[in-house]
Amino acid sequence: MLSHGSGGRQAHDLIEKIFTLSFGMTTPHTDSAILDVSSSVMAFTTDSYVIDPLFFPGGDIGKMSVCGTVNDLAVSGAEPKYIAASFIIEEGFPVDELGKIAESMAAEAAWADVKIVTGDTKVVEKGKCDRLFVTTAGTGFIKPEFRHISTGRMIMPGDKIIINGPLGNHSIAILGARKSLNFKSPVISDCASLNHLIGKVMSSSADVHFMRDITRGGLAAVLNEILSFVRTGIVIDEETIPVDEPVRGICEILGFDPLFLANEGKVLIVAGEKDCREILEILKSDPLGRDSSVIGEFVEGVGKKAILKTVTGGRRIIDMPSGLMLPRIC
Amino acid sequence: MLSHGSGGRQAHDLIEKIFTLSFGMTTPHTDSAILDVSSSVMAFTTDSYVIDPLFFPGGDIGKMSVCGTVNDLAVSGAEPKYIAASFIIEEGFPVDELGKIAESMAAEAAWADVKIVTGDTKVVEKGKCDRLFVTTAGTGFIKPEFRHISTGRMIMPGDKIIINGPLGNHSIAILGARKSLNFKSPVISDCASLNHLIGKVMSSSADVHFMRDITRGGLAAVLNEILSFVRTGIVIDEETIPVDEPVRGICEILGFDPLFLANEGKVLIVAGEKDCREILEILKSDPLGRDSSVIGEFVEGVGKKAILKTVTGGRRIIDMPSGLMLPRIC
Repeated sequence: MLSHGSGGRQAHDLIEKIFTLSFGMTTPHTDSAILDVSSSVMAFTTDSYVIDPLFFPGGDIGKMSVCGTVNDLAVSGAEPKYIAASFIIEEGFPVDELGKIAESMAAEAAWADVKIVTGDTKVVEKGKCDRLFVTTAGTGFIKPEFRHISTGRMIMPGDKIIINGPLGNHSIAILGARKSLNFKSPVISDCASLNHLIGKVMSSSADVHFMRDITRGGLAAVLNEILSFVRTGIVIDEETIPVDEPVRGICEILGFDPLFLANEGKVLIVAGEKDCREILEILKSDPLGRDSSVIGEFVEGVGKKAILKTVTGGRRIIDMPSGLMLPRIC
Repeated sequence: MLSHGSGGRQAHDLIEKIFTLSFGMTTPHTDSAILDVSSSVMAFTTDSYVIDPLFFPGGDIGKMSVCGTVNDLAVSGAEPKYIAASFIIEEGFPVDELGKIAESMAAEAAWADVKIVTGDTKVVEKGKCDRLFVTTAGTGFIKPEFRHISTGRMIMPGDKIIINGPLGNHSIAILGARKSLNFKSPVISDCASLNHLIGKVMSSSADVHFMRDITRGGLAAVLNEILSFVRTGIVIDEETIPVDEPVRGICEILGFDPLFLANEGKVLIVAGEKDCREILEILKSDPLGRDSSVIGEFVEGVGKKAILKTVTGGRRIIDMPSGLMLPRIC
């Protein structure tokens, strides 16, 4: 009800019953969490989640909102630590669904070893938002030697590009879960917190030059973002890009390109050739990186372009995604 | 358009044109901001803003989203430092209004001396959200000696309660700005960043025992929250509560109680009697505290209640607000 967003008794009850318990927060609640800081460099990120539907094969908006923020921090070289969670709730949204989503956030936070420490709830009138939007913010701490890992400054010609598994599963799972679409797919979202996987790579002797999670806009968007701050080109070998068979099939039917599809548990790692093997081994030994693959490299003399060597032997430019792809995929 | 939320070219253009410029962010953009940390204790907060209308006398959703987060940090004893801003935008929302809101955020951030360092944008289909929702998160750093200021542990019987000015202006300004309501009011929202004002008090020799901003739920909600973690009662003297004349008049006509109305630039400060005068002097010397007043005290032997001594000589309990007050006031 709207009164649950009023700041009065009902708002307090909602927070106590749904969020405080799930997230293991201590009382008294103040609007800011007071937290210990373990490093002199901090990563800070936020994302809003407007995914439709709220529940999908492999996750829900709650799990996703934790994974997304954890991954944004992890690829910046940080150890994710604290999460803030803010809820915009449509009047009439069932409290038991909200409870399920909070539990799912709590479970993912426990798995990822982060704490949900502060939050907010707002309730808007029926019809003024679509059921539930969740915004998470996260902070984590960075060892000073990893400070520049998200800037791309350390990328060099000859560096290899590694991804930790097949592309497109999240997008196709969401499409399949939308009741308006007339197909049922066996595909499950790859929604996962990657911080432990990334932590293993970071604490190895291998030297990581760059990391980025591959989300909205897909691999194509990440490659083009990288091109905006490096001086070389990128050549990707289509044959080496892992795509699961059902995803490939549905893409062919619907005319989608897996390179442009969103993921929620994929990371792109850049490293020199000699460190590449060690990283690949670490990734492959983890369930979240079992199908890792070296998919391309940074190449001089081809211009500042991302070029795809296709399976049929052709070459085409991977452009920045443009126009409407799949709305509300995250 | 929906494509502005796609993670592709249009999304990048929107971010570059509207947010990056306004907020003075540096490229390349990564999903996490990498930040220096100046203290070993951090405050971390988040709030979603769903206010209707977006623009109102004295502010807009952008200014408000910065003030609210700055104030949450400041009352926890922190120096607010970094802001994350996440936007959920309805398809068709005018880009120039978004620009105005971003400029307003940037101006308020500059005034409050905080940096907007990271963000996110999502676009949902027409009818799936009400124009624009903004979620801000903030981090700031706390001198170790102020670590417990938001817990209420330092509150003692005899301590005085100070507020920095008249109550209810924000609520009445919003009501007046809603076109559906048939009255026009001269009242302007008190929406303001209080960190500089609070900073002056904190750096004085006066000993602050507790602080809290007075927002949704009004003074009544704050007093009842305090009662949940102290052992004494609270006695408030109605005569000493500043309420502006037009606010009082509109409250009488509409049957509102100023103690239950939302504010966006009000802080409640608790201190011992001897420090109270110094704090009041500091507050009154600042435009944001000109009408500061000592409104009550912590009293033993009256039970764990908040009691209002009314102007007519009666006594009534100030209960926790319950049920629907004004929806979407922040």
